[in-house]
Parts: sequence; C-alpha cells; structure tokens
Amino acid sequence: MNAPGKILIFICDGLADRPVAELGGRTPLEAATTPTFDRLAAQGENGLFDPIAPGVRAGSDTSHLALLGYDPYEYYTGRGPFEALGVGMDVRPGDVAFRCNFATVEERDGELIVTDRRAGRITEGTAELVAPFDGLELDGVACYLKESTAHRAALVLRGDGLGAGVADVDPHEEGRPVPEAAGETPADEKTAAVVNQFVRLSYEKLKGHAVNEARRQSGEPPANILLPRGAGMAPALPPVTELYNLTAGAVVEVGLIRGIARYCGLEVIPLPPAVNGGLDTDLGAFMEATAAAVAQYDLVLANVKGPDVAGHDGDAAAKVDVLQRIDAASAALFDGLPAGLHLALLGDHATPVAVRDHSGDAVPFVLWGPGARVDDVTTYGERPAATGGAGRLRGQDLLPILLNLAGRAEKFGA
Amino acid sequence: MNAPGKILIFICDGLADRPVAELGGRTPLEAATTPTFDRLAAQGENGLFDPIAPGVRAGSDTSHLALLGYDPYEYYTGRGPFEALGVGMDVRPGDVAFRCNFATVEERDGELIVTDRRAGRITEGTAELVAPFDGLELDGVACYLKESTAHRAALVLRGDGLGAGVADVDPHEEGRPVPEAAGETPADEKTAAVVNQFVRLSYEKLKGHAVNEARRQSGEPPANILLPRGAGMAPALPPVTELYNLTAGAVVEVGLIRGIARYCGLEVIPLPPAVNGGLDTDLGAFMEATAAAVAQYDLVLANVKGPDVAGHDGDAAAKVDVLQRIDAASAALFDGLPAGLHLALLGDHATPVAVRDHSGDAVPFVLWGPGARVDDVTTYGERPAATGGAGRLRGQDLLPILLNLAGRAEKFGA
Repeated sequence: MNAPGKILIFICDGLADRPVAELGGRTPLEAATTPTFDRLAAQGENGLFDPIAPGVRAGSDTSHLALLGYDPYEYYTGRGPFEALGVGMDVRPGDVAFRCNFATVEERDGELIVTDRRAGRITEGTAELVAPFDGLELDGVACYLKESTAHRAALVLRGDGLGAGVADVDPHEEGRPVPEAAGETPADEKTAAVVNQFVRLSYEKLKGHAVNEARRQSGEPPANILLPRGAGMAPALPPVTELYNLTAGAVVEVGLIRGIARYCGLEVIPLPPAVNGGLDTDLGAFMEATAAAVAQYDLVLANVKGPDVAGHDGDAAAKVDVLQRIDAASAALFDGLPAGLHLALLGDHATPVAVRDHSGDAVPFVLWGPGARVDDVTTYGERPAATGGAGRLRGQDLLPILLNLAGRAEKFGA
Repeated sequence: MNAPGKILIFICDGLADRPVAELGGRTPLEAATTPTFDRLAAQGENGLFDPIAPGVRAGSDTSHLALLGYDPYEYYTGRGPFEALGVGMDVRPGDVAFRCNFATVEERDGELIVTDRRAGRITEGTAELVAPFDGLELDGVACYLKESTAHRAALVLRGDGLGAGVADVDPHEEGRPVPEAAGETPADEKTAAVVNQFVRLSYEKLKGHAVNEARRQSGEPPANILLPRGAGMAPALPPVTELYNLTAGAVVEVGLIRGIARYCGLEVIPLPPAVNGGLDTDLGAFMEATAAAVAQYDLVLANVKGPDVAGHDGDAAAKVDVLQRIDAASAALFDGLPAGLHLALLGDHATPVAVRDHSGDAVPFVLWGPGARVDDVTTYGERPAATGGAGRLRGQDLLPILLNLAGRAEKFGA
C-alpha cells in the first residue's frame, strides 16, 4: 500500500438541477462556463449519486451525514438535535434536543390558550428572550436554549436517564390550550416532566419581559411562551477521526452543516465574516481557507452555499452566475492541491430552480486524483456525468471510495 | 414546491428479453418497430432496472410490489395470500392463506393414501367442487375456498389468533399417506388444527361428489381431497393512497396483478371482456380505459399482458408482433396525456422467449415528463436503455423517483 493521502470533499451546496427552458433545456451547471470544473471532469472519473437513495429528497443534514459515511436512516434521529447543532449549540450523544417555537398565549379561566403559534413571526429580540434561561436546571437536568431564525429556537436537555419519546408540545391550531408533554417509558416520562416545567417556566419568565412589553406597545403579539417539538436523542456517532484514523477539518459557511461537521468529529475552521453563505460571499477567502485546511488536515470537507441559495430563490441566471464565480475562484485552490490528494467535486443534493427546494434528483460528481479511472467525460454537468465511468452510486458510497483511492481503507477479509 | 402532478406507470408485462438468433441477435423489443415508444425514449430519461435485485427472477407479484414501492422481502409473505388475491378472493391483513391442490386419495387400512397429487390435472368441474365449502366455519375460523387454474385452488382462513407457521400438507410423493399439519406456537397449532379438519372434511364432501362420480365413470381419477400448502399470513401493508396521499387506480388484465393492486390500495378499473390478457386482447379498449383512469386518479398502474404471454410461449415473432401492436395502440393514449404528468414506460420483469419463463435480466425503462433529464437515447430497447442517463436502478427505486419528479416526495431532514 502507498502512504495514506489527503482527501478533499468539495461540495457546491444544492448544485444539481433539472433542465431549464430559459437555459435552452440545459441545467444551470450545464449552461455555466466552468473551465476549472471541466478540467477536473476531463482528468477524473465521473458519475451520478443519490444522496440518500433514488428519489429521496435529502436535507442538508441527512446528505452530509451520508457524505461523511454515516447511514442517515441510523443516525438521523429527528430534527431537534440537528436544529441545535445548526445554531451552534454544544450537543452531545444522549442529549435530548427539541426545536422550539416562540408563541403567544393568553390566560383564560386558568388555562394558557395559544393565540399565535409563531408569536407574529417575531424576528428581533429573541436573543434577549432566551437569556433568562441560561444555566437553568430542572429536576437535575441541565437545559440549554438558543435562538434560531425568526420565531424558532433550539432546546437541549442534558442529564441521566432521559428519553426522546415525547410528543410535540404543539396545539396544531390556534385557540387551543397548550398541551402537556407525556411519555410512556420512565425515561420518556422524565423528559416529559422536564419539558412541562420548562414550558410553564418559559411563560413565567417571558410574560413580563422587556422585549414583550415593547412588542405589546407596538401592537405586536408577545413571544411569551416556548413550545418544544421534534424531540430527538443526539446519536452516539463515532467520529470520522476515529473511524478512519485521520485528522479532519471543515470549511463551511452555514450553521447547520458546521454543526453536523463538528458532531462528526471534524474541526470547524473559523471563517471571516465576509464568507457569509450568501450569493455575495467572499469566494476568494473561502478558497484560501480551504487551501489552508487541506494543508493542515488529512480529510477536508468544504461546502460553498451559493448554488443552493440561487436554487431556493428559483433564479436560474443567479445559479449559473454563482457557479461560474465558484469555478473561477476555485482555480487557484485546485491548481495548488498537494500531490497525491484525492478530490471529490460534487453537490450535496439538487435544489432545482423550478422546485425552489431540495429535490430527490441525482447529483453529478467527479473523483480526481491518482488511480482514478479517467473516463471520456470532458465537461462537468448532470448529463455528462451520467455517461461517466463510475455509474450511479449513493451518497454513503463516496467516502469509502475516496478512502480506498487514498490508501486509507481497511481490507475486509484476507 | 410545485403543485403535485399525476403519475402513470405503464407496464408491458414480461417485456424484457435476451438477444434472439432468429431476430439477428436483437431482442424482440429491439427488433420491433415501435415509433411511439421510441418517441418517449427520445423525449425522456432512460435506464435499466432490476425488479428485485440483479439476477433475481421476479414473479409478477413480487415485481409489482416493488414497483408500487414495497420491499418484497418484507411484504411478500408466501404464495398463499398472493394466490388467493390472484383468483379474486377478498384477502385481509392477518388472514392465513394457502394454495391447495385437488388430489386423489384411496382409503387403505384406515389411512388416506395419495395416489395422484394433482387429481389427473383436472381442468373442469372445480367450481362445482369448491361449492360445498361455501360458508364453512371450523373452530370459529371462517374458511373461504376458490378454484384457480387446473387442479389448483386457494384457501383463506380468517379468525383470531391464527399463525402461518404450518408445514405443507403434501406427501411430496405419491403412494404416501396424507400428512398431518402441525405448528409449534399456539397460533400455528390453531391453524394446523383447522387445516387438518379442513382436509378431512374435504374428503368427506368430495368423495361422493357428482363431479367425481362422472370422473370415475370416464376413467379419470377423482378430485376427492384438497391439500393446502404455501401457508402465508396476508401482510399488513399500508396502502399507497395513505403512504403518498394520492388517489390511485389500476388498469390490469389478469387476476393476480389485479389482486395485488387492490391489496396495495389501488382501485381496480373494470374492463370489458374483450380485454382478456391474451395476445388477442382488445388493446384499443385497454388504452381507452387507461386514459380514463389517468383523468380520474393521481397515480395509475397499467399492465398489458401480451408480451409475457408470447415470452412464456417461446414465440419471438409473436412477441415482436404484440409489442408493435401495443406501441401503435398506445399512441393516442400517450399523445393525450395531461400536461405535467410523469410517465414510466417499462416492463415488470423479463420473460425471454428462450427461457419461456420469467428471468432475472434487467428491464429497460423510460422516465418521461417535466424535469426529466432528457438523454441521448432515441430508441426504446434493452441495450439503448443501458446507455441512458438514469443508470441502473431497482424496481423499488422507481416510484420514489416518480414521486420526486411529480412534487409528491417528503423531505428527509432539513
């Protein structure tokens, strides 16, 4: 065996797409002028992959779990833990985590009636609203709360003997009372008891909060309660560093994927504020950070968010444009890769501009580096990739293939 | 997400084949002149699929389970329930069903000795022979019996606490006594007790039956006992209508697949008698019924049987001919499909004329409709499809892919 080599997984988020009429039936990637990507395709082995399975619409969380080699059906344990990771919270195996909504309730005949499940879609002041919960302990269980986007927050419970089999504290319709959480096993009951205390306490702490006084005065519904849902137990996930005996770093623009990378054992590289996950992100700084990470770590996962943003916006021209700018900005990075490195250039899922959301379409990839079976594909795109030598794979297949090429795979058998 | 669209799964039963010398090394599909299918291939995304897994010889039952999105390894619970579905019986989750043979026994020294396991392959009179069993109840278990083809029948037991772990009542060789059914668990013992009563009772009811008197007089062995085998518990199978939140109809020529479609939650469309599942079926009426079903339902499964019949007959010319006639008859259907519909044109398995039975060869498919990544394939056939953009999939992958294209797939993750 050769000495183990470096690996770079370079992800254009939401890359893949469908034929677009305004692009002459080409996809944005096919329509974009991408000489750097095309060079890699021409020098590499091309194929398509289904992030989870054919037709399955992957989230960014499940697709990245798969690309890091984990079975998402085993390790994706509900929205709560991944929402908490996404807002940068410290989540540990065995923690039970929830998504929360700030909501509006009124007291009527001793009951709390939900009058707005999203507290008027509050956008400001939620950082102040979570502050009173700092250091909270209920029944010996530590509670951590952090605001997310708009009316959302994440709640992490850490303590012994907690279960995640707790139904959502969600009345589903306005005008109904706040339901009680309940669990069936002793562990679930323990969690439910903590959740019910937390919900009542959230009302006590929030009803007279200065942010809510100001909201009332401006005619907005107060964010005077927190309603947890999407309970999930943070999975006991063996880190990639231990699984594959390597060092690993992540160059990632957005919170959710940063959180997943950290949870999977990758060091998350700090990025300057101009690397902002938007269409106007500083691509040069992103590429420099990726090059630095490649110099430092055995395995680097890089995720540039722009194509997904353009896909969600339904803007084909913007998707073409950002792909062209990523291609141009990446030239120096890919030209300067250390000898012997293996690169996978790919998306994490499709975000077609016609769909404005993730879809279950297959995603093109290039495997590049020593030993790759260079095929006849000369441009990077969905349909060229379909004619490539690697065929159609699944997201979870790609890391083992890279580890194999990099001389880092264990033999199975003698 | 776009508004959810319609889906048509159009199955030419037994479509796929192997190269045939008398066709110049082409398959019947490759040799047939099929301008309609070719147009769909040219406008669509092509590929091959293995109905169950590579090399696995699928039955019509298991292949249709897979094409409707069910794992046949989970939901195919033995021949009995599917034989009963195939003859049009009402089968419900939890029923225990058997295939039965009419057989011939003789009393010798107080034992019933099987002298012909198939009662001289009886072909007539079996409907009269099952009549005495109508409304039978044994140990509080309702028994339903219906004749199938030739010496075959199906038995359904419905009652509380039944098990399906019951060995076949089959002596395997002639000249041996009728064995007793036995079970190991209480549920299996209960079923075995009912089966043993049923077998004895079948002898009592059949030995003097008029049909058998007539058979004896013409020198044929009497069909004087029923021997159940292939016990299986009808699976608790969530209907496609609930799984995917849609309405669903089936346009199907033959009983087994009609039964499976009904069991999977599809409405089975009545067809005129001239749509008979043979090579002389009324293809025009079949296509009209399919068009009407497409107008009415979100998801339609259509199955035209002719190619499978020609394959079982080992008749390459007949297979070419029926494919050409299906192609011609389908032009109006496919020309008139509603805007936004997604179509899969495929077989359910291969029935090569050289094999005269189902084989485990891969089957070509076309995915056609908005968002399909149109590839370079311009004709419909096994080897053109192998060069298509969709690669090689499995039967169970196809419905998720169609649901994804039709805007009907749930996101997995965030």
